[in-house]
Amino acid sequence: MTGPRYTPLAQSLPATVPFVGPETQERQRGAPFEARLGANENVFGPSPRAVEAMRQTAEDIWMYGDPENYHLRQALADHHGVTPENIVVGEGIDGLLGYLARLIVGPGDTVVTSDGAYPTFNYHVEGYGGVLHKVPYSGDHEDPSALFAKAAEVDAKLVYMANPDNPMGSWHRGADIVAALGNLPDGCLLVLDEAYVECAPDGTAAPVAADDLRVIRMRTFSKVYGMAGARVGYAIAAPGLIEAFNKVRNHFGMNRSAQAGALAALQDEDWLSLVQERISEARDRITEIARDNGLETLPSAANFVAIDCGRDGAFAKAVLDSLVAQGIFVRMPFAAPQNRCIRVSCGTGPDLDAFAAALPKAMEAARSA
Amino acid sequence: MTGPRYTPLAQSLPATVPFVGPETQERQRGAPFEARLGANENVFGPSPRAVEAMRQTAEDIWMYGDPENYHLRQALADHHGVTPENIVVGEGIDGLLGYLARLIVGPGDTVVTSDGAYPTFNYHVEGYGGVLHKVPYSGDHEDPSALFAKAAEVDAKLVYMANPDNPMGSWHRGADIVAALGNLPDGCLLVLDEAYVECAPDGTAAPVAADDLRVIRMRTFSKVYGMAGARVGYAIAAPGLIEAFNKVRNHFGMNRSAQAGALAALQDEDWLSLVQERISEARDRITEIARDNGLETLPSAANFVAIDCGRDGAFAKAVLDSLVAQGIFVRMPFAAPQNRCIRVSCGTGPDLDAFAAALPKAMEAARSA
Repeated sequence: MTGPRYTPLAQSLPATVPFVGPETQERQRGAPFEARLGANENVFGPSPRAVEAMRQTAEDIWMYGDPENYHLRQALADHHGVTPENIVVGEGIDGLLGYLARLIVGPGDTVVTSDGAYPTFNYHVEGYGGVLHKVPYSGDHEDPSALFAKAAEVDAKLVYMANPDNPMGSWHRGADIVAALGNLPDGCLLVLDEAYVECAPDGTAAPVAADDLRVIRMRTFSKVYGMAGARVGYAIAAPGLIEAFNKVRNHFGMNRSAQAGALAALQDEDWLSLVQERISEARDRITEIARDNGLETLPSAANFVAIDCGRDGAFAKAVLDSLVAQGIFVRMPFAAPQNRCIRVSCGTGPDLDAFAAALPKAMEAARSA
Repeated sequence: MTGPRYTPLAQSLPATVPFVGPETQERQRGAPFEARLGANENVFGPSPRAVEAMRQTAEDIWMYGDPENYHLRQALADHHGVTPENIVVGEGIDGLLGYLARLIVGPGDTVVTSDGAYPTFNYHVEGYGGVLHKVPYSGDHEDPSALFAKAAEVDAKLVYMANPDNPMGSWHRGADIVAALGNLPDGCLLVLDEAYVECAPDGTAAPVAADDLRVIRMRTFSKVYGMAGARVGYAIAAPGLIEAFNKVRNHFGMNRSAQAGALAALQDEDWLSLVQERISEARDRITEIARDNGLETLPSAANFVAIDCGRDGAFAKAVLDSLVAQGIFVRMPFAAPQNRCIRVSCGTGPDLDAFAAALPKAMEAARSA
């Protein structure tokens, strides 16, 4: 008996996971984390109105969610001044990136991203047989000019860029990205991941025309809206591209309570403002804690801060390992030289107290390693 | 500006939806349905313990769900007497069918199903370029012998069968399906969709060995567990096939509250028994209502009943259209001669009162059409 006959592509793929989850690490270490600061979740939580909406719909969970996401798309269209035909809702940006890769990337097709940028994008591109070309960061910024030049050089069908960037927290003015689009080669689509843009300075969101054929913007309720576990992301693009998602998406894939929660979260601007303030305060606090340990932080427009540990990736990894062993869940960049840093998500006061208590020991452990 | 360059396969696909949702129909008719009996949802709802678990986790939705679905897989393994390595959890059976098609079906690969069986399976197979071969029902039963013979004839990589069957409600003894596996050609995987098996007679679930390389069984919390809107399905198969899902799945795709709700639902056997009783009573009531209108029903092992409207598909469609116009959401089979029926999901007393009130008018409307 030979078992299933996988496609040649499936046979060639590794069974992998873009990120090891914190629960897995907790099971491995045999204890829960004291502070959960590694996945850029919003510890300040969702809007109380979103919580209430999800609670109220728990009994209604016997019904499938609306496959058109009608009310949420209407509200998002109003929010962004576009039409519902410009918006597709999906199971987080991760789910939407998967659908997009499926629509555009076939075996051997070329795709451009930055070396050290979002691994889940790479997972999806490679999962459809795409060939990734990686451009180095410029300083600690993604480099639109270099990305677009590489796209022209290798005839890329997609180019990925996050603004603000994860894992570095750096950012560009949105207008600068739009200006750079003139150098994006014809037939190459820019995937502009704006997952963190709601906590960035005004002017960071790219002022892209809704029907611009060159760009698809990705947004999410997982970060500043505090609903990572709900799995609600959306994309904004020209109607033709949005409609193409209906060729491949899991039409009944959305959780009904999550739909209701996202709609309520979008309407609670006061909570959004409050979270934005708390994120800003937490970024400052992380910077202070780093300074107390003789370390510099990178400016951040996201809900996390990259701390420069001052040496190489092995040293930062030793710092990280000690933090994790002390019960502080953090992560770090994958590629040099950005992997000289650890990445700390914005936490509550007690979270950051625990981090502040653990960091000196972690630095000492790394120095004596 | 040419816009995105889709793959040849994506260009060839229609933008479609396997089912039009009831909310879409409500928006089209300008009024809500009085009875929602078309999607085989469980109107009796989820376990109160599941509702409570989902409510309690609403505030925790800022955290991503565990990408390993560790606790749920452990509990499911205990429940089925298998190991967690035999189980993959995904975004409903729909999501899992999509991943499975991606792993196995490439352009031109052949797949066998019954003519009129689950359209979402077909959507995924065609979405990866597979070629479907459809076998007629035998009477109103899916026909394992004919399915497996066709699979041998066309060298199929997958063959799909639902037991109990949707949309007819017919079923086979699980042991008979296992006995028929001897005729499944080597290298062909049976996708055995047991979405409705928890409301079928004892002996319907197929007694497949957990490590049998020939079969993957699909189960769900969407039907008898009453959590369609939560999007929690799972598959049971040999560890190698289960591990292959890690090559392609959306690792962080599960809703965190849904994970908690499913775990609680699985542990509430009293509620399951209660729902099973109510489903049985509702099936009897639907049969009575049909008889009152001079119509026969098909025996059903699922949470719905197919009513034979006594003429052809056009006549049944006229009955259905009148029911929908009267505020009763029902659906009907797609293929002849099964499309002589309408399919009515088990409802509450008031749901079925409304159906009973509407059916005579619908029959009259169809007869005079």
